[in-house]
Parts: sequence; structure tokens; C-alpha cells
Amino acid sequence: MQAGIIGLGLIGGSLGLALRETGMFKRIVGLDNNEIHLQQALSLGLVDEGVELDEIKLCDVIFLATPVEAILEILPKLIGIAPHTTIIDLGSTKYLISQNIPQEIRKNFVCAHPMSGTENFGPKAAFKELLAHHIVVLTDLEQSGEFQAAMAKEIFISLKMNIIKMDSKSHDNHAAFISHLPHIISYALANTVLSQQNPKDILALAGGGFKSMVRIAKSSPRMWSDIAKQNKNELLKSLDFFQKELEFATSLIKEEKWEELAKWMEKANSLYEIF
Amino acid sequence: MQAGIIGLGLIGGSLGLALRETGMFKRIVGLDNNEIHLQQALSLGLVDEGVELDEIKLCDVIFLATPVEAILEILPKLIGIAPHTTIIDLGSTKYLISQNIPQEIRKNFVCAHPMSGTENFGPKAAFKELLAHHIVVLTDLEQSGEFQAAMAKEIFISLKMNIIKMDSKSHDNHAAFISHLPHIISYALANTVLSQQNPKDILALAGGGFKSMVRIAKSSPRMWSDIAKQNKNELLKSLDFFQKELEFATSLIKEEKWEELAKWMEKANSLYEIF
Repeated sequence: MQAGIIGLGLIGGSLGLALRETGMFKRIVGLDNNEIHLQQALSLGLVDEGVELDEIKLCDVIFLATPVEAILEILPKLIGIAPHTTIIDLGSTKYLISQNIPQEIRKNFVCAHPMSGTENFGPKAAFKELLAHHIVVLTDLEQSGEFQAAMAKEIFISLKMNIIKMDSKSHDNHAAFISHLPHIISYALANTVLSQQNPKDILALAGGGFKSMVRIAKSSPRMWSDIAKQNKNELLKSLDFFQKELEFATSLIKEEKWEELAKWMEKANSLYEIF
Repeated sequence: MQAGIIGLGLIGGSLGLALRETGMFKRIVGLDNNEIHLQQALSLGLVDEGVELDEIKLCDVIFLATPVEAILEILPKLIGIAPHTTIIDLGSTKYLISQNIPQEIRKNFVCAHPMSGTENFGPKAAFKELLAHHIVVLTDLEQSGEFQAAMAKEIFISLKMNIIKMDSKSHDNHAAFISHLPHIISYALANTVLSQQNPKDILALAGGGFKSMVRIAKSSPRMWSDIAKQNKNELLKSLDFFQKELEFATSLIKEEKWEELAKWMEKANSLYEIF
């Protein structure tokens, strides 16, 4: 079989490396509209060859690993693939993509979200261990063809990923809380420090706590502004819940309710009883 | 020389282990009001012996490693130490402690804040590598005796820590942004997810981003509610700045200003140019 990957950044590039190890594909080709990224991907050996979209469309399995707005643009261009083709999108949002898949290729399509990533992006950030032993969410699987669903599962199992199935609306709700909101918070914390008169003096004191809180503030603005756009409503809902928690803590501090503040912190500790 | 450590949790216990390696002290004794913690500390060999406060007061160097409210309570009890004694407090807040040191022992006193920690607490969390190669902030050093300041520096250098000096007001401002605010945010994010109907389903999707954002939500409620109490004003100021950033991002999302949102994220990325 032949695999084609559109988008050769952290996810697409890591996927190329990991797919090669599975031995499922004789040839893995790639496409990236950014010429520099394409050359980097080729020199790093993330895929065997760079090709045009027409050739990608001839692959047995096509992976969409671009930022999510680009996935929406690519969808109609995939009409015309062979009936057995499997298309797997790896976007961080699922409902809007799922809604926009042309009916002609709906059965070819499997919607997936690998719950793994790092704060780094682009082909140079790719590494073959990124995906293994992480969760991959498959959404609206009942709308995929039986063969394509089975193919996608076989691939993710070969990649040593752990499959969870749900509908795309639930995914977008859960992903808002577990991934999209935390990114906005991390960006906001970084910008809070940068907005001070003396960020260098403040940052000189940074320990492990701060570093882990701003790690994902290094993430790709293109990728994450796209995600905010596509998951606007769920993200706003999660922001609202977070702001309420923050306001509650702030009011306890203002009113000097230290015992209640400690209880609120104890409640947060209890996350680790189910996590 | 003999060292005495009051409070044998993560910081005090790790200090006991690391001090032994320096070879500076013939004997290291400890005190913890929690009998279980004291027994744990002794069986883990964090200090050589458990002793009463009277014996601690005979030590050449006394370290205060309890939660910060307990440090305030201990201060007047230390009156009566020998003139050459050095007392080093390791609290995460500095201004209020500095203000409350009895005049009789002000020159004996060196105020320090090691910028290292983990989300774990208690004697079992202690490990000898915690402090080395981390920053330690020494505050209001001009109020310490020359001998005591030199002793404290010698100890922190032996512990392979990197010394930064500043006044306690600046410390409390900087620490609010770099440490205290991030802890409140992490607790708030954990409680946001816990407040949902189905936290288990949401947490099933957690990847590395979420995990790094809620790591410090596992921290000690006693320790952190004490810190909020002692650094109330600076913490509230930092919360206000953070809430403004969050509200700005929220308004960009509501108004669908995606280019501006990406620019706001790019600004956050720039933290890594000075960090």
C-alpha cells in the first residue's frame, strides 16, 4: 500500500516516521505548501518523496495533518479518489470538519484526533515516538465505510495508539476543556508576565512550576487560532467555567477566607484520585 | 557545626539530605510538629535525630522550612539564641516574614526563597537533588549580620544554588507572577474540569499539555493558602493582570478576530526569546 500525508509538521512528520516502522506501507509520500518545510521534511526523511495533490489522491491511505482551517479547504479537492481509499484527518477539532466532508467521499473518511503533541512545531519538531501509547479519538465512526473504519483502526493499533470513540460534538466539548482552554490559559499567563515592566527580572526567578505552566505558550499561533475559530462555542463555554473558578478564588482571597481557599485547593487535589 | 531544620517536608527534608552531602555539618537535627512526618523523616534518614525547639536553638544554623504562617509563629520563639547563630527561613513569601522578625534576632536572620519545588509534599517527597542548580533569592540582605549573610551564601553555594539578591517587596511582586499566580491558575483549571458533569470522560483524553497545566494543582493546600494569605496584595494584582489577558483573548474569540488572536499568541511565543 501507499500512504500520502498532507502537512509535514509535528504531527504529519512524526506520523511519517512512525508509519515507516509499522511496515504497512511500501511508500510514503508527502505534500506541504510551505516549500521550506517540504525540503526540511525530505532531508529529515519524514516521507520518501514530495508529490502533488493529484498523486496524493492515488494513495491507498491519505492523512490530513495541516492546521484545521486548511483541512476544510482541502476537503472538496479530494473528490475523485478511488472507492477503496481511506482518508484520515488528524485535526484537533472534529465537528466542523465532520460537517464539511463532501457526501461523495464521506464513507472514505475517518475523523481522528491524536491526543499527543508538543509545544514545538514544523518538520524539525517531528519525532517517531510522538504518537505511540497516546490516545487517539475517532469520531462519528458510524458515518465512515466499514472498510475505511477497519483500516484506520488497524493503522492506529500498528502505531500503538489507544483508540477512544465518540461523536464529534462530545469530542469538541471534551477537547475544549482538556486541550484548547489550557492553551489559551498558557498563552495568557505568558502575556501577563510580558506585560509587566520588567519581565526579565521576573523570569529570572522561574522554577519548574512556571515552566510547566507556560510550556504550551510556545505552540503554533496559526494552529491554535484555527482551533479557536473552529471550536469557538465550546471554547467560550470552557473559558466561562474557568473564569468563574478564577473569580471564586479571587473573591476568597479578597475576603480573606483562607480555610475556604484551602478547601478549594483540596478539591483541585482530588483530580488525582480519578486521573 | 550543627544544623537544625524546623519542618521536614519537601523543602526541609530535601535540604537535610543535601546538607549532609556538603560535609559542612557534623550533625543535622530536625523538628516537625506532625509526629507521623517526624517518624517518616527519621526513617528516611532526612535528618540524624528529632529534637525539641530548645535543642534546635543551640544549633549553629537553624533553617525554617514550615508553611509560611508557621514561620511567623516560630519567629518570637527564637529569641535567646547565641549571637553567632544564623537563622535562614525558606518561605515562599518574604515581606511579611521580614517585617515580623524580632529586632533582637534581626542580624541573625537571613531571608531566603529557593525557587525549586515539586507538586509533591511531606517527608516522602524529599530528594537530595531538589535544590542544586536552582535559584535561591536572598532578600533584605543588608539587614542581616555580615557573618550570617556570609554563612548563608557559603551554605547555598555548597548546595550548588544560584544566588539572586533583592528587597523583599520586589521578591513578593516577582514571586506572585512567577509562582503564586501560576498555582492559583492550575488549581482553577483542575476545578474547572472537576465541575463538569463527566470529568472522567474528559480526563480520559488528557495529553501532555493538560498534564503540565495541572501538575502543580496537586500541591499542598496548607502551604499555598498560607502563601496567598501572606502575599495577598501582590497576588491579587497579578490575578487582575491575568484576568485582563484572559478577557482580551475571550473578546477576540467572541468577535472572531482570528488574525489578532494569532498575534496575541505570537506575543506569548516571544517569552522564549528572553527565557
